[in-house]
Amino acid sequence: MSEFDQGTAVVRRPAEDGPADAPVVFDAELDKGWQIGGGINGGLLLALVGRALSERLDEVGGHPQPVSVSAYYLSASRPGPAEVHVETIRSGRSLSSGSAVLVQHDDEGRPVERLRVLAHYGDLARADEDVRTSAKPPALPPVEQCVSTAAAPPEFLASANLLERLDLRLDPATVGWALGKPSGEGRIQGWFRLADGREPDPLALLFAVDALPPTTFDLGLFGWTPTVELTVHVRALPAPGWLRIVHSTRNLAGGFLEEDCEIWDSADRLVAQSRQLAVVPR
Amino acid sequence: MSEFDQGTAVVRRPAEDGPADAPVVFDAELDKGWQIGGGINGGLLLALVGRALSERLDEVGGHPQPVSVSAYYLSASRPGPAEVHVETIRSGRSLSSGSAVLVQHDDEGRPVERLRVLAHYGDLARADEDVRTSAKPPALPPVEQCVSTAAAPPEFLASANLLERLDLRLDPATVGWALGKPSGEGRIQGWFRLADGREPDPLALLFAVDALPPTTFDLGLFGWTPTVELTVHVRALPAPGWLRIVHSTRNLAGGFLEEDCEIWDSADRLVAQSRQLAVVPR
Repeated sequence: MSEFDQGTAVVRRPAEDGPADAPVVFDAELDKGWQIGGGINGGLLLALVGRALSERLDEVGGHPQPVSVSAYYLSASRPGPAEVHVETIRSGRSLSSGSAVLVQHDDEGRPVERLRVLAHYGDLARADEDVRTSAKPPALPPVEQCVSTAAAPPEFLASANLLERLDLRLDPATVGWALGKPSGEGRIQGWFRLADGREPDPLALLFAVDALPPTTFDLGLFGWTPTVELTVHVRALPAPGWLRIVHSTRNLAGGFLEEDCEIWDSADRLVAQSRQLAVVPR
Repeated sequence: MSEFDQGTAVVRRPAEDGPADAPVVFDAELDKGWQIGGGINGGLLLALVGRALSERLDEVGGHPQPVSVSAYYLSASRPGPAEVHVETIRSGRSLSSGSAVLVQHDDEGRPVERLRVLAHYGDLARADEDVRTSAKPPALPPVEQCVSTAAAPPEFLASANLLERLDLRLDPATVGWALGKPSGEGRIQGWFRLADGREPDPLALLFAVDALPPTTFDLGLFGWTPTVELTVHVRALPAPGWLRIVHSTRNLAGGFLEEDCEIWDSADRLVAQSRQLAVVPR
């Protein structure tokens, strides 16, 4: 089993006696290998919750893949046990909709919500084949001419276990910040794949939209940039191979910034679009 | 009271005996004056739910304004009574978070969910004043050189009561579709204000992000384009006066399209950013 599938594994609890519409509970273990800065990476959490939703919405509606997923981040997740509580809201012909909560327990055993999610799931293998994409894929140098994050300083890597699980090659034109020369444009882009070769799928896209360094680095702001909201639209099943990811911001204001992300697959399809709202580092 | 404030009014029900964390219920009346096509406009619904959330999250956390709001649309709303059930998820120092459901009853009296919402609320009057916006406001001709939607054919206006409540002046460069010549670019932009002169505020922005004609018109697709998901980030308190709204799409695929919206105020601030996922018309 791949590192990603292990890291996002969920185990469904047997149903307890109770109302038929009671939430279905899944158990999970948040592994410290997915830490970045002060907590577990937000995209990994989204993929884990997304897997629980996938199991449940496939069961009730035959809709296994995320089409739209919105996560509201409430507190930083820690390595250790976690629960996902999944509620089915509605099951229709083309979409099933659900809600989910990721819960951990504090030192006194009290439940603490980490994030809450709303989602529409569908069947991307049956999607309409009409494609009219006016967006253009990023012009990236070849993989071997890009900058591997494995080259980051050891003291940085020590607080970013996550990076060992990724093969991330950043466009040299957008890594000036690593040499003390941020461009100020607010754009970081590069090639992405999972380090163990696990091919992309919709759940991996939920992770990948939050896996690049924050665009604030390219604005010369290097503190922690916690996500408060993240919405992902999965627009197609990704083809195997490298993904190209573009991360950009255009409006830092009021203590927040938006981060837009596009993911293009090896077949030049725009497979995911996301936007998050994050807190500006102090 | 303005048409918009009437149309989004909510009346809180006295608390019933029950758990302290039970949802707070608000009653509302959906007025047919806000219809467009087959149902009540999605932005109006979002503003109405946003008003209920505002009352509750201001009460529990001193956070009256929407910062991030995500709505999952589940079924078409009809004119008539509706309820908003608001749950407080968390109240922190800078943000309070809540969930809300808009419910109507069918002919047999069964409750039907129209939309479900997650939201972070804050206090935009106390927001950090550092602004670094690299986005540029749209270059629009003066208001008087733009095309009023009041000039639309009467048979169209008959199914779009909503338009009587708006003063919408579209950029002539983006209304070729009205003359049988859609540009194919997927962009519609113009000036916006409420017809009765009610000035913009954050709740009005929740409405305004979904008030322009769908970008599919500019692709030559004229059917109904139901929203399935809409997330709005309110980035600043809007100044009084006309708003400029840009609506665009870059990826029609798999039976869905995204619609990005930017709203600029009269002081040249980017006051709201939104994206929705909508169904491609047949």
